[in-house]
Amino acid sequence: MKGVKIIEWLGDRIRLIDQTRLPHEEVYLELSDYRDLASAIKEMRIRGAPAIGIAAAYGMALGAQEIEASSKVEFLTKLRPVSETLSATRPTAVNLFWALERMNSVAEKGDDVAQIKAALVGEAKRIDAENNEANRRLSLYGAELIRDGFAILTHCNTGALATAGYGTALGVIRMAKEQGKNIHVFVSETRPLLQGARLTAWELRKYDIPFTLIADTMSGHFLSKGRIDCAIVGADRIASNGDVANKIGTYNLAVLAMENGVPFYVAAPTSTIDLSIASGDGIPIEERSAKEVTHIQGIAIAPIGVAVENPAFDITPHRYISAIITEKGVIREPYVERLRKAVGE
Amino acid sequence: MKGVKIIEWLGDRIRLIDQTRLPHEEVYLELSDYRDLASAIKEMRIRGAPAIGIAAAYGMALGAQEIEASSKVEFLTKLRPVSETLSATRPTAVNLFWALERMNSVAEKGDDVAQIKAALVGEAKRIDAENNEANRRLSLYGAELIRDGFAILTHCNTGALATAGYGTALGVIRMAKEQGKNIHVFVSETRPLLQGARLTAWELRKYDIPFTLIADTMSGHFLSKGRIDCAIVGADRIASNGDVANKIGTYNLAVLAMENGVPFYVAAPTSTIDLSIASGDGIPIEERSAKEVTHIQGIAIAPIGVAVENPAFDITPHRYISAIITEKGVIREPYVERLRKAVGE
Repeated sequence: MKGVKIIEWLGDRIRLIDQTRLPHEEVYLELSDYRDLASAIKEMRIRGAPAIGIAAAYGMALGAQEIEASSKVEFLTKLRPVSETLSATRPTAVNLFWALERMNSVAEKGDDVAQIKAALVGEAKRIDAENNEANRRLSLYGAELIRDGFAILTHCNTGALATAGYGTALGVIRMAKEQGKNIHVFVSETRPLLQGARLTAWELRKYDIPFTLIADTMSGHFLSKGRIDCAIVGADRIASNGDVANKIGTYNLAVLAMENGVPFYVAAPTSTIDLSIASGDGIPIEERSAKEVTHIQGIAIAPIGVAVENPAFDITPHRYISAIITEKGVIREPYVERLRKAVGE
Repeated sequence: MKGVKIIEWLGDRIRLIDQTRLPHEEVYLELSDYRDLASAIKEMRIRGAPAIGIAAAYGMALGAQEIEASSKVEFLTKLRPVSETLSATRPTAVNLFWALERMNSVAEKGDDVAQIKAALVGEAKRIDAENNEANRRLSLYGAELIRDGFAILTHCNTGALATAGYGTALGVIRMAKEQGKNIHVFVSETRPLLQGARLTAWELRKYDIPFTLIADTMSGHFLSKGRIDCAIVGADRIASNGDVANKIGTYNLAVLAMENGVPFYVAAPTSTIDLSIASGDGIPIEERSAKEVTHIQGIAIAPIGVAVENPAFDITPHRYISAIITEKGVIREPYVERLRKAVGE
């Protein structure tokens, strides 16, 4: 995004925009300890499945720099807690584990400590660049589904902030706009953490794309009134059969879209596809702090101490998904074979 | 509710609890000018379809007291702006217009000014008492649908605060609890104004009924996980064919409940039924201030100045409604004839 770098490798530290402070403040953090980066991921100062993957990759490169080791074996032993700390930050988005696996694999293939340290930086930069390239490609494929005059419903944030790249669902929307299509976006605010209201609204303003912010309760109303032509969301993990884990509330939108005959698209790079999992039932759903529900910007909105559940994601069964938009093309049913092919297995 | 009077007639003024200050503060307002009561309704210091009806009735009684007139004709002329001011507060809940019609009819039938003033107070008290009686009756009918061990999803607030009586949807839940049934409630927070988080959570605590507060985005997740046995909501207006206008987000829950095979009930007194309207399409939907969406307790949660739509209600078509619970009994399809019969026409 013009003027905003979501995450940046500075050689001995990582610089990132603190997304918990948006939209009111643009505050940057500079982290030289991978443990601080892990905390930043946990606290959602950086969030969004692809961005978490990139952050974890840079986190591995950062953690590697501080390791003092006289042999490759010693180095790899000392690299393990770095990988484990980053891996333990958030359970649902698979891009995190995918990126760590790539980084670990590079470390294992390396020759000596100095070479591995350099290779890890190189691999993190490659993951970053490849992700951005994948974002642009999938956005081009996705934009073919957007017609001039479309009103598009989206959820959570899937733009530059979520991807440290061009964006996934929001990338498709950006691309449609760049192609000169006259579009309008309905942004669901996305409780509890309000990524729609805080982050997507902030990005859409920067892109000069007209939008209407709505509460999550209003999605069905606008769908049933014929005010929405399609819905596009991102994904945190896609199972082999096309079931999608994404921000809580996605399933609601998918059901409401289908009920009203509105296409429901998922846009995600193939790094989000987890062929090791048969269906959505196998995807771990992160449960987050009750305070995210009971408090908004530190202010209590419910009686103190009430019982809360706070699943951060839900599962949308593939039967509600019109198509999955990836950098390899637009994938429709049957998902099992086509997702496998897209991943290249 | 023990210890809390939602609205009270004090002879020359009306006392009511300011619901915008809940759950953190129990602040009471004493209003001796009907115009202030109209503002309190507009600002949702008192809200909920049945409670608005009762407030409007007392508002007519209050406005009548200040009228100086030497004839019935003069009195009725001066009463008209009182009725019109109260009528212009909120467009969707029909109980408001129903109560004003009853009050105007009493005024028209009266003999002289003094007698009419007294009769209006009497009629307002009667509407209040009848409403509470209807709440209790419908709660008894509704509680028959609640089995021991049920987890019940509800939306917005439909308890004492909303009805100035026993409650409608929440009345059914209270009654089931009073009958000794072991129940658990899922409370959707109900953005934008958070009546679930602020008011229903506050009431359920007072009734000692266990509950879990969830964000509106989470309803589908819990429904799809089989964690919810039925959903019950209130109504602001019910059309002849059983279509229901209720708090925004109700339609989402109804569709998600049906998709997951969970019964979806609407609980409302027959004063909520508007036989003059054929279907939900004819019910006016109030559009409220953008600030309700962009700000929470005065704090901006979105970039300043974003475009917002804020419909306060939505329409749930009757095909999603398993039954409508009234004080005349539990009504199921075909709604047209059965609703007509329940209203007594």
